[in-house]
Amino acid sequence: MSASETLTLAQHCRELSEAAKRASSQMAGLDSATKNRWLEASAKSLVRSEAAILQANARDLSAAAENGLTQAQMDRLRLDPDRLQVIAEGMRQVASLPDPCGEIIEGHVRPNGLRIEKVRVPLGVVFFIYESRPNVTADAAAICVKSGNAVILRGGKEAAHSSRAIVQVLQEESHGVGLPPAAVQLVDVADREAVGHFLQLNEFIDVAIPRGGEGLIRRVVAEATMPVIKHFDGNCHVYIDAAADLEMAVTITENAKCQRMGVCNACESLLIHETIAEVCLPVLADRLRLRGVELRGDSRASQIVSMTTATEEDFGTEYLAPIISVAVVRNIDEAIAHINRYGSHHTDAIVTNDINAADQFTQLVDSSAVMVNASTRFNDGGEFGLGAEIGISTDKFHARGPCGLRELTSYKYIVRGAGHIR
Amino acid sequence: MSASETLTLAQHCRELSEAAKRASSQMAGLDSATKNRWLEASAKSLVRSEAAILQANARDLSAAAENGLTQAQMDRLRLDPDRLQVIAEGMRQVASLPDPCGEIIEGHVRPNGLRIEKVRVPLGVVFFIYESRPNVTADAAAICVKSGNAVILRGGKEAAHSSRAIVQVLQEESHGVGLPPAAVQLVDVADREAVGHFLQLNEFIDVAIPRGGEGLIRRVVAEATMPVIKHFDGNCHVYIDAAADLEMAVTITENAKCQRMGVCNACESLLIHETIAEVCLPVLADRLRLRGVELRGDSRASQIVSMTTATEEDFGTEYLAPIISVAVVRNIDEAIAHINRYGSHHTDAIVTNDINAADQFTQLVDSSAVMVNASTRFNDGGEFGLGAEIGISTDKFHARGPCGLRELTSYKYIVRGAGHIR
Repeated sequence: MSASETLTLAQHCRELSEAAKRASSQMAGLDSATKNRWLEASAKSLVRSEAAILQANARDLSAAAENGLTQAQMDRLRLDPDRLQVIAEGMRQVASLPDPCGEIIEGHVRPNGLRIEKVRVPLGVVFFIYESRPNVTADAAAICVKSGNAVILRGGKEAAHSSRAIVQVLQEESHGVGLPPAAVQLVDVADREAVGHFLQLNEFIDVAIPRGGEGLIRRVVAEATMPVIKHFDGNCHVYIDAAADLEMAVTITENAKCQRMGVCNACESLLIHETIAEVCLPVLADRLRLRGVELRGDSRASQIVSMTTATEEDFGTEYLAPIISVAVVRNIDEAIAHINRYGSHHTDAIVTNDINAADQFTQLVDSSAVMVNASTRFNDGGEFGLGAEIGISTDKFHARGPCGLRELTSYKYIVRGAGHIR
Repeated sequence: MSASETLTLAQHCRELSEAAKRASSQMAGLDSATKNRWLEASAKSLVRSEAAILQANARDLSAAAENGLTQAQMDRLRLDPDRLQVIAEGMRQVASLPDPCGEIIEGHVRPNGLRIEKVRVPLGVVFFIYESRPNVTADAAAICVKSGNAVILRGGKEAAHSSRAIVQVLQEESHGVGLPPAAVQLVDVADREAVGHFLQLNEFIDVAIPRGGEGLIRRVVAEATMPVIKHFDGNCHVYIDAAADLEMAVTITENAKCQRMGVCNACESLLIHETIAEVCLPVLADRLRLRGVELRGDSRASQIVSMTTATEEDFGTEYLAPIISVAVVRNIDEAIAHINRYGSHHTDAIVTNDINAADQFTQLVDSSAVMVNASTRFNDGGEFGLGAEIGISTDKFHARGPCGLRELTSYKYIVRGAGHIR
């Protein structure tokens, strides 16, 4: 970064953003073939550059050891030949997805003969802020470029060397295929204030996407002057209705809670209809306890199965851990009200064979995904068939739920006349 | 507002927002018939309440006269039986539009049998801030309710009595048809700080929509903690290409500039290809001057037709007045670069018979609507066939261009399984 040493940090951030904006203008006219050639070439080159990338990663790992990162953090940071293959495969997969840009979302001819098309276009410039996993560097670049956007990557400092090595490969390949060099840029300054500078530059940056802990997201939301796609964790519910199949209820709850505990679409809270609670809860409690899950219940749940008393706070908590809150509800209305009050509008499931209960639940639960007789764990771009995902949005505005290529686009109206005037 | 007198302003704003949120939860389950009954009943009742509404309007008008409003402002504020009929007709028209809620935007079955639907749902609570036109009170309420949202209306204080009388009618009709009473609420306190309080309440309000001057919009953007749909004015261009039909070029430019000068989709700047400028510009200058328009040109334009010299600032200005800036460009690339640099990404038009020029222009001009051989004045919800419009968004995020019913919605995924687990 010799050039930037002579610039102030604010100037550096501004120039980088201006370059991204210029690149995004060029990218609006790029055909899919060019973007796909870059993705394929980059995939190949990442594997070919294994030695350099793993060497860079080794530097990150030894710094991480000195800085006392946990074993789990070290594991997330670590690259090896297999993981590099997975990253390359991910880029090839993005190449194989349909290009969202240019899609005619709808179109019609007006009575006066004016032909109106609503056409999908890139958002422009994405500022992507993430934590230490170096694979995200390549994934995010692939998704942003395929959707026609220029991207400014701000990775965690723990992965600085790895990210730099990866971005160098991606940028080298951009020259060969005719992608603007500033399509993918890395913010390669350690200064934490850089993020704050970028978040002010709404004349160049169209959207900020923070991916990481709640603290990071809150900081970005507070400081950003451009729209933010937020990915908060989920306080997800399974509601076992009076008309549930008992075996299915147990299986879905166990899967939703236990298949992976630390993810946003894992179940954190269980609601059971009172008419089924005495039969269902003891079986469920046994099953969950076998998996090491602690139950915290309201007074009615505790009368059926002895468990820790759940506080008001418990019902609002996303544990991301082997704990589940439990409440017995009088009816489906109470379940829906509970979910809309305590939940985080992420993913909620009902288990029922009653078609009216299912309809009421899907209509009134205000969440990005509402599941009927399926585990909450299915709210995921891959499971939904989006092919690639940059996160799961907890917003209602612009993009909700899994964000794939199309969620990184906008649209424009193209209107064709023959000298039409008003 | 006797109840609110005992509350602080902040508490009042909070309670009103909470009521709106509760109403919006109920509204998520409302069928179209109920919403349409309310729209029809309200239309009828507005006309029936003519005496009370015009009396309230007379109070606003006499206050306005005392406060020295301009004649134009007085005219915008004034209601009469005809205008009330137009307002009522507008509500009936919204009733006749298809309900966006419940629309299945897309759906598919996954290989594992999981059925996935992406369903359109209301955003939730809209905070609508507008200036003095009392008709907006009814229009905004109609569009928000039809799209399934609860709305908090904050009108200009100049129209306070008129808006109160209109909202009273709308609320009375909501009782009869089963719409929650808090579906439409008016912020009926004069205190300017109320807006600031509402803009902090992102736990209850899903989107803020300011409609009015740039100062109002900038204030809302700066203070809002929820998403904002912005409607800035437009610095719109007409580019006359080398391959333009001369007569069409003149007609479209004249229409885009002169049909209505003070609106966001009026033309503010004219770009002419150098090979056609000497023939075209003198005719155009004559035509525009006949309509009272002042031309301000760059040096090349001024050499062809004598005119005031345009400054850099002129090219970035939305005059909303009988002035137009003029530049002669060497080629279409220069025209596109000029528009993307100086324009406001609102509406830009090309006049050309060259298919390649049209394609390049539509692809690379980054505006909400790009017109080929049609006046910029067509970027409008009515002209696009949206039926009703709450404004023209200059954002790229969520909603771009004319905002009708669908632009006030989000979506959710509804996933149906048969005991599916991961």
